[in-house]
Amino acid sequence: MNTADSSMANSRSADEVTIHEILQLEEAALHRWLNGDPSGFLEISANDVVYFDPFTERRLNGLSELTPYYEAIRGKVHADRFEILNPMVQLVGNAAILTFNFISYGGNENAMRWNCTEVYRRNNDQWKIIQTHWSFTKVK
Amino acid sequence: MNTADSSMANSRSADEVTIHEILQLEEAALHRWLNGDPSGFLEISANDVVYFDPFTERRLNGLSELTPYYEAIRGKVHADRFEILNPMVQLVGNAAILTFNFISYGGNENAMRWNCTEVYRRNNDQWKIIQTHWSFTKVK
Repeated sequence: MNTADSSMANSRSADEVTIHEILQLEEAALHRWLNGDPSGFLEISANDVVYFDPFTERRLNGLSELTPYYEAIRGKVHADRFEILNPMVQLVGNAAILTFNFISYGGNENAMRWNCTEVYRRNNDQWKIIQTHWSFTKVK
Repeated sequence: MNTADSSMANSRSADEVTIHEILQLEEAALHRWLNGDPSGFLEISANDVVYFDPFTERRLNGLSELTPYYEAIRGKVHADRFEILNPMVQLVGNAAILTFNFISYGGNENAMRWNCTEVYRRNNDQWKIIQTHWSFTKVK
């Protein structure tokens, strides 16, 4: 293997490590979220996070708006299990754009289907969410 | 003004120029879109663009999936006017995350309200969209 090949291999490997880290952060926060605990997402959201979901009347701006919104539903969200479908991470320097489809299963296996975009930003080797967008997936 | 101040001023100015450029790209594509022309968005979307809207059953992956989806509605989308509400651009190196609420007005001033997240990536001084997420805003 020549130097160029070696460098490419290392670079690819670093990206793979980053992608794995992003997916782990998201999955851990989702586990807590679906057990009624919004702190998992709040802890990994940056001060300047912006946020959309199907229930907000406008974009929420900053952790100062997201925190009370999430705290108001603490203990109220529950799913028995969930599936993250086809997660993809696009890396652009210190930004990582994670997109996936998502299914959460409540009682009697009732499914809710979602589209999700999370943008993470790296600062001092720590990745934090700066943009969250949840919406409903069209059901056939 | 010392060197540090001058450098900061230049940096701020460069960011402002970038933000203005991103907003102009988006607005120009929206004008064409609401006149039935999807080419405005296709021309500024990267090959690896990913895409969600309320009518897709899953994330669309790549320009190869977005192009036929848009071509199928060429000439069918129309709005008399639109409003981009509170656009914000978060810059992370060569990534720019644009978020806004959006209202399109059709006949009889019927309004459709949207949430939008666009992620642009800079390559050779050209910004292209690598992620689009449109969803409906909750109406009070």
